[in-house]
Amino acid sequence: MSLDPKLQQYFPPQRRHLIAVSGGRDSVALLHQLLQNGYKKLIVCHLNHQLRGRAAAADARFVERISREEGLTCELGATDVRVLARQTRISIETASRIARYAFFFSVARRKRCRTIFLAHHADDLVETALLNFFRGASPGGIAAMRSVSVHRVGKSELTVVRPLLHVWRRDIDLYVKRYGLAFREDATNAQRGPIRNRIRHLILPHIEKQFGRDVRFAIWRSAQIWREEDDVLESMLELDSFNAPEIEVNVLRRLPLALQRRAIVHWLRAHRIADVGFELVAKVLGLIEPSSQIAKVNLPRNRHARRRAGKIFME
Amino acid sequence: MSLDPKLQQYFPPQRRHLIAVSGGRDSVALLHQLLQNGYKKLIVCHLNHQLRGRAAAADARFVERISREEGLTCELGATDVRVLARQTRISIETASRIARYAFFFSVARRKRCRTIFLAHHADDLVETALLNFFRGASPGGIAAMRSVSVHRVGKSELTVVRPLLHVWRRDIDLYVKRYGLAFREDATNAQRGPIRNRIRHLILPHIEKQFGRDVRFAIWRSAQIWREEDDVLESMLELDSFNAPEIEVNVLRRLPLALQRRAIVHWLRAHRIADVGFELVAKVLGLIEPSSQIAKVNLPRNRHARRRAGKIFME
Repeated sequence: MSLDPKLQQYFPPQRRHLIAVSGGRDSVALLHQLLQNGYKKLIVCHLNHQLRGRAAAADARFVERISREEGLTCELGATDVRVLARQTRISIETASRIARYAFFFSVARRKRCRTIFLAHHADDLVETALLNFFRGASPGGIAAMRSVSVHRVGKSELTVVRPLLHVWRRDIDLYVKRYGLAFREDATNAQRGPIRNRIRHLILPHIEKQFGRDVRFAIWRSAQIWREEDDVLESMLELDSFNAPEIEVNVLRRLPLALQRRAIVHWLRAHRIADVGFELVAKVLGLIEPSSQIAKVNLPRNRHARRRAGKIFME
Repeated sequence: MSLDPKLQQYFPPQRRHLIAVSGGRDSVALLHQLLQNGYKKLIVCHLNHQLRGRAAAADARFVERISREEGLTCELGATDVRVLARQTRISIETASRIARYAFFFSVARRKRCRTIFLAHHADDLVETALLNFFRGASPGGIAAMRSVSVHRVGKSELTVVRPLLHVWRRDIDLYVKRYGLAFREDATNAQRGPIRNRIRHLILPHIEKQFGRDVRFAIWRSAQIWREEDDVLESMLELDSFNAPEIEVNVLRRLPLALQRRAIVHWLRAHRIADVGFELVAKVLGLIEPSSQIAKVNLPRNRHARRRAGKIFME
């Protein structure tokens, strides 16, 4: 198990970086490996999702302790993810992710830090790809887990770096054993959500048994293609124009359908519409059809997309 | 169950078209539906793959009989697919497809016909997408099954039309029952190959059970996105230049990696290299790396791709 050498070049050890540590095997291994590589200014971030009562509190204490032992700052946060999910009517898994990123952003702002290391590995990438595939994602959505990606909230930027995306879980297991690292058994699983655990423990093994071979590697490898094709398609959009409050109908109409869809996705996300799916994009695109009688589309949380005077805007 | 109305417009009933009829439920339903819609000049094509002995011969007689009853020309062919697979070292499934297309092309030439109807339906599309996904295909490969696609062999062109790609198997079943259509139970399964049957009967039901919902529709729907994104990316390549015997290294280098890959795929296919996969494309692309010491890449069947004087060519 070793870090991606290019990433070490872009995000050098002498700078300060955040690292998310759940206390599970993967994040403990990543932390250890980064320290081995001279990353001495790491700021450990741990969010208690309050889903597992005492066990979660023990995870937090564990992360605090290993940070202290390594002489690292440790930032602890806590969000009642169950309440968040109920209030905003989203799944526990989505709520966990939103809470985690909100926490990372807040620590990043406070600590004036712009990067965070996450311990996702090759199996995570494959499982995410599969999950998104079954949910009906676009190629870009299937290849969602990237070794470097920039997240934006308003004007804040956070670069998410995954230095283990080329490492398989079995190699992390070996690494953890070799160095005799202590970790909390269920810390990562708790964040993962039931469907993701089912993909890992039931669906993928069943597929591999039926196929009689390792489909993980094939999926991992083709994620490279999806990612790069996604980049080409994204580069064809003038993103600034789709972050604006209004879009010119004529600008949209000139694009091929595939890019119209991407433009609408960007526009909706830029205006903080969560869970942008196929149907919603199709409805908004209905506004620009020349023969369309529809001038208003309902969006989540009582907002609307409206067409007027050759423009689409958000209300 | 009804035909795609746009297809009826592009491929009108008064023209002559081929239709592939295995004798199985789907092709029998498609034939019936086309006849109901006034397609009176159909030419029925049936290839005996010689995989099922007497049962296969009975399929052929069945297809001949229903063609005669409808007053349609019936073209029968036979290929020993098992021998073909052994000789060319490809899977039975790939050999079947190659044999089928060779047969369709030969009938099309003889009958001066440029279109063929195939009975693939929505479940076929989803199962193909899943199969290609597990094999590590690109987004274009995942969305391989299209309602209209043009196949080329040398200078011959055959347009493959799938008018049932929006129809689910259960609706075909209902249709067949409603009209009391006779069909041969195993005729299509035989063409499908074991892994495809496993996807249909074991893998997909297992996934749906674990997910607790219909993943088929999500996959079917997102195939639209993949297809259209694929079209945009294809339109960015000047295909003619990649059908030529040589490619200019400088032309390739100017493209983003995603398009370099696609260019190489086209170039290899144009030169009749079968089973073009990720590794092979990566190796050929290795020839254009500025620092590359490699000037020759082995291709299947004793052929080679070679770089010399700023060009890549095929030997």
